[in-house]
Amino acid sequence: MTRISIVGGSGYTGGELLRLLLAHPEVEVVQVTSRSRLGEFVYQTHPNLRKRTTLKFSSPDQLEPVDVLFLALPHGQAQTKIEHYAALAPKLIDLSADFRLRDAAVYQKWYGSPHAAPGWLDKFVYGLPELHRTEMAGAHYISGVGCNATASNLALLPLVKADLIETAPPIIIEIKVGSSEGGAEGNPGSHHPERASVIRTFSPFGHRHTAEVMQELGLPNVSLTMTSVDIVRGVLATAHATVKPGVTTKDLWKAYRVVANENPFIRIVKEQRGIYRVPEPKILAGSNYADLGFELDESNGHVVAMCAIDNLMKGASGSAVQCMNLMLGLDETTGLEFMGLHPI
Amino acid sequence: MTRISIVGGSGYTGGELLRLLLAHPEVEVVQVTSRSRLGEFVYQTHPNLRKRTTLKFSSPDQLEPVDVLFLALPHGQAQTKIEHYAALAPKLIDLSADFRLRDAAVYQKWYGSPHAAPGWLDKFVYGLPELHRTEMAGAHYISGVGCNATASNLALLPLVKADLIETAPPIIIEIKVGSSEGGAEGNPGSHHPERASVIRTFSPFGHRHTAEVMQELGLPNVSLTMTSVDIVRGVLATAHATVKPGVTTKDLWKAYRVVANENPFIRIVKEQRGIYRVPEPKILAGSNYADLGFELDESNGHVVAMCAIDNLMKGASGSAVQCMNLMLGLDETTGLEFMGLHPI
Amino acid sequence: MTRISIVGGSGYTGGELLRLLLAHPEVEVVQVTSRSRLGEFVYQTHPNLRKRTTLKFSSPDQLEPVDVLFLALPHGQAQTKIEHYAALAPKLIDLSADFRLRDAAVYQKWYGSPHAAPGWLDKFVYGLPELHRTEMAGAHYISGVGCNATASNLALLPLVKADLIETAPPIIIEIKVGSSEGGAEGNPGSHHPERASVIRTFSPFGHRHTAEVMQELGLPNVSLTMTSVDIVRGVLATAHATVKPGVTTKDLWKAYRVVANENPFIRIVKEQRGIYRVPEPKILAGSNYADLGFELDESNGHVVAMCAIDNLMKGASGSAVQCMNLMLGLDETTGLEFMGLHPI
Amino acid sequence: MTRISIVGGSGYTGGELLRLLLAHPEVEVVQVTSRSRLGEFVYQTHPNLRKRTTLKFSSPDQLEPVDVLFLALPHGQAQTKIEHYAALAPKLIDLSADFRLRDAAVYQKWYGSPHAAPGWLDKFVYGLPELHRTEMAGAHYISGVGCNATASNLALLPLVKADLIETAPPIIIEIKVGSSEGGAEGNPGSHHPERASVIRTFSPFGHRHTAEVMQELGLPNVSLTMTSVDIVRGVLATAHATVKPGVTTKDLWKAYRVVANENPFIRIVKEQRGIYRVPEPKILAGSNYADLGFELDESNGHVVAMCAIDNLMKGASGSAVQCMNLMLGLDETTGLEFMGLHPI
Repeated sequence: MTRISIVGGSGYTGGELLRLLLAHPEVEVVQVTSRSRLGEFVYQTHPNLRKRTTLKFSSPDQLEPVDVLFLALPHGQAQTKIEHYAALAPKLIDLSADFRLRDAAVYQKWYGSPHAAPGWLDKFVYGLPELHRTEMAGAHYISGVGCNATASNLALLPLVKADLIETAPPIIIEIKVGSSEGGAEGNPGSHHPERASVIRTFSPFGHRHTAEVMQELGLPNVSLTMTSVDIVRGVLATAHATVKPGVTTKDLWKAYRVVANENPFIRIVKEQRGIYRVPEPKILAGSNYADLGFELDESNGHVVAMCAIDNLMKGASGSAVQCMNLMLGLDETTGLEFMGLHPI
Repeated sequence: MTRISIVGGSGYTGGELLRLLLAHPEVEVVQVTSRSRLGEFVYQTHPNLRKRTTLKFSSPDQLEPVDVLFLALPHGQAQTKIEHYAALAPKLIDLSADFRLRDAAVYQKWYGSPHAAPGWLDKFVYGLPELHRTEMAGAHYISGVGCNATASNLALLPLVKADLIETAPPIIIEIKVGSSEGGAEGNPGSHHPERASVIRTFSPFGHRHTAEVMQELGLPNVSLTMTSVDIVRGVLATAHATVKPGVTTKDLWKAYRVVANENPFIRIVKEQRGIYRVPEPKILAGSNYADLGFELDESNGHVVAMCAIDNLMKGASGSAVQCMNLMLGLDETTGLEFMGLHPI
Repeated sequence: MTRISIVGGSGYTGGELLRLLLAHPEVEVVQVTSRSRLGEFVYQTHPNLRKRTTLKFSSPDQLEPVDVLFLALPHGQAQTKIEHYAALAPKLIDLSADFRLRDAAVYQKWYGSPHAAPGWLDKFVYGLPELHRTEMAGAHYISGVGCNATASNLALLPLVKADLIETAPPIIIEIKVGSSEGGAEGNPGSHHPERASVIRTFSPFGHRHTAEVMQELGLPNVSLTMTSVDIVRGVLATAHATVKPGVTTKDLWKAYRVVANENPFIRIVKEQRGIYRVPEPKILAGSNYADLGFELDESNGHVVAMCAIDNLMKGASGSAVQCMNLMLGLDETTGLEFMGLHPI
Repeated sequence: MTRISIVGGSGYTGGELLRLLLAHPEVEVVQVTSRSRLGEFVYQTHPNLRKRTTLKFSSPDQLEPVDVLFLALPHGQAQTKIEHYAALAPKLIDLSADFRLRDAAVYQKWYGSPHAAPGWLDKFVYGLPELHRTEMAGAHYISGVGCNATASNLALLPLVKADLIETAPPIIIEIKVGSSEGGAEGNPGSHHPERASVIRTFSPFGHRHTAEVMQELGLPNVSLTMTSVDIVRGVLATAHATVKPGVTTKDLWKAYRVVANENPFIRIVKEQRGIYRVPEPKILAGSNYADLGFELDESNGHVVAMCAIDNLMKGASGSAVQCMNLMLGLDETTGLEFMGLHPI
């Protein structure tokens, strides 16, 4: 059994990771840390784990060496102690934003302060298997992914990979998200009477995850518009782009099928009948699937490309476990088989 | 125009009161206080008031004398300065729990500490017009009402008034409530990801509003069970009692009709067809109606009596304005005509 | 009192109209028709009207002449009997899509069949007061508005009116809507277990309301993308356009202020702090306001223009009553004063 | 591999069963029938199964013999053809209400018509493992369970088993349920604008599941009050009973611990701190757990006993798979390990 610890286990990403690893047949969870809940049972914070584990939160200052170390800390913390963490395990996956960008100047532009460990940036593989599967096999350090970036990257992946869209004109990505994306700490705007029933555009453009889309897809002119709606889990990214002259719906089908065939967690959802004709995060809670769809207006080349994910799964902890599987030479779907629920 | 001020205007009760009074044809709002938001436009806190008032929150230390003073402070504050507030206006309505109970010992039992102004308790009229309309005409001091107490009191009012139920056996009242009942301040449990989709029984018995039901209906053996559900506004109280021997459904119809005829904001909802056959808070948002319903199992005398209200209206600020109207000799429905919305 | 009847009163638009007119101080509702609910009390269908009216649904075949006739029929019906309806009242407001477009060929393109009364198309004024206020004063025939078209038209109105945006490049409008937009008749996708918690893009482009935006704003290259979310009432339109060279945020502020000053139901929502910084339909339920906001990326000219409305109010029945007021020479806000609720 | 078929696979219960069996390591799904969707891929109806199975709905008239046959038909259908179905498999589990009651007269009383196969009633074991585990080992026929009955039965099980409550006085059970309980077919009241945000008491007493509580717990005086709230999955039953003289909280703890220790899917939730102190269906979506809690007012013997379940899992398909495991001699938790999600 591969021995695993999680640093920062009281947040939503850490809790989801713990849930997945407790059920994973090839690993054993050794420690989960939390300063604020030190000594408490993990199921008091993550009530779904009741009767499944008697683990208690331990101190981050008393970490034992393990085979794989996951960091699920708030952004900005991992980079200040990365040497320390790397000394504890031969393989490390950091779910924060600290090691997603390859260029320290880009990091500083989007995150507002210099990176504390710029020399480590190019040691990390960006944590989206659909983009970096082969590099992950021998990797020691893998970053997490931004959930909105993941929905955007996967929405556009078939189009970019098959070189079907114009990259110079603006690509507008409208993203609708649930409340868990904001993390486990409350704020005035997350108080239920204020947060219920919202359609609240909290970032018209300039969201930090934009940098991950530009870096990973090589798109120079991308804009993300973020809007909160009344769900807990889920992201839907709707990207508006323009196809190259002569590109048809048939070309798109082909491009999407290639991507769906190569990737076990990519599905195409494009039905002519029934209720579920397009990608929807509703049915993805707890699942690691990314559902893709598209519609092309052949009269003007306007393509609408959609991707739905569970932000805590494919957009965070699910992808991280998938990366771990690839790192360890396991089948990448191990421990990620949950299909999602219908209805929900 | 009657001059009015509101002490404590940044919470939900204060905001709702302000909304009602700004639209009330017979009154003028002079001041609204808030220490924490001093100097800010009230519409920054209550966004529905944008373009309707340029009032700013003023200091509670600089209150001018007015005709009617509303206190919408957190529980426990009004009682410590009641002399001060009473000196500022000939008529005063306190929406907190401070002056709802007539007996200082009962107050201490349910609220855990001695009352700071026990001599004032019997100066106040309990603020439910359906129970104290005639006393309100000449009153100087009127208390608020607990929202859960109001739903319970009105659910049982026709049965108690017509002396149709046994009062010795336990009367179980199951109450389902929305999130606005908890007030404008957030807490870990009100964070949207934790509060959405709940059916959360936060008080199996012993809720403080029980004291108001016992006092106002004279019922010795009442229990309130409180459960939060995923709405913002609304309370449904479902009371389980036993009718006296021989009481029939026809007797109940008669008792309910009497109460509905005497009270402009009481409606009976008991339909055999359609979607809306029973009282439901869903359609009451913003309305001052209390919708009553009942069902009697004649085989065993089990009566289920229901009352739906908007907790911020009939359960708080709406009733307070209704009291003010009665105090001032106005038609009690003035400024409370909004019908509610369908669908919503 | 102006005598009014409503043809087609069992749907959501008809019900909302009825609610507004029952509370309107200058009009009297004479008849409300419904074939399917003939003879039933209107409050059995619209439960918020209980205790407010004893009107029953009457037959559309027995309409009396009135001063103003509202048609709230399913699309396609008014056009087949427009001569008949016009003979019953000197003033007529049709809330359906039948008389919104001025050009019969455009109608046929978007609605798929020839118009049944093309000669009537240019007799109607398009029912958005913010665009056609002066024409409404003497008008006999006013059309309704599409709710999504209204959110789009108002989002872009300040920009178009002040000639601040490029009109040749594509303007992408992303629209998020509640379930009441689909009307009172259920379908498999509106069944609660399937409709709750959705983020469901039901129309990537090609929505019929696009024609109203093109016609009213004169924009040749507009695309509407429609996504359903988990609310009942409300529309948020987010339009992505490009400003002309040199246009600054200051220019936009000026343009928006002009429109807000000219129109009693237009508000600008653009705050630097607090919870409600941008337009949100959440707080607009029952209100006739259209809340506008914008954000300009001066580095590349990308402007995000937002408009939030209640689809049944400003997007349908509220605008229709506002039109009636203008038609009748009344203050246009009469009967539309409700401020909306917070929290809700 | 045990060969399995499902008769009636297009509803919610059938879909959930299919999801569980497709992931079950010891069984193979041979056929899933649906008349209305004959020939369609099952994932078109149950979108969570996309990319997980290429099964199509087959005809109920062309069933092959299998090892275990599940019937997930609308109530009333299985009993008319039970001989036919029983001939197809040595083991049969019927999820409908047809074979839950042991007494044909009781069936007729609650279901309104005579049972079509009364001779089969005592061949079936009632499908709740917590009550009938040992009988299930050699059973050929197992019935399903009512979801509300299950929440009620498990809420009271520790109290009844340890003989701690009075059984003569009325036991009031208040049950709050989500919309999936009503099944996959829509009706006017399940249309999203009418069903969202409800607190709707659709059955004050007399719900059919009452019969299962009376039968299984031997309680003569039980009443179920059913109220719909705005969730899709989940049931919370809150039972009000009276303990026998002298019974203390400590006695209750002991009784609950016994039941939790004997049953792998029973958990006690009774915390003094944190957000999740009581049983809540919110965190149980997709899980087979039944979470139990209680609170005793020692001053008057009023005990509030709670049970939260996912109605489609522990309340239907999850229990059915648990029964199958016991029937087949497998570990009863096989294929039911999913922990549920937090947050959700």
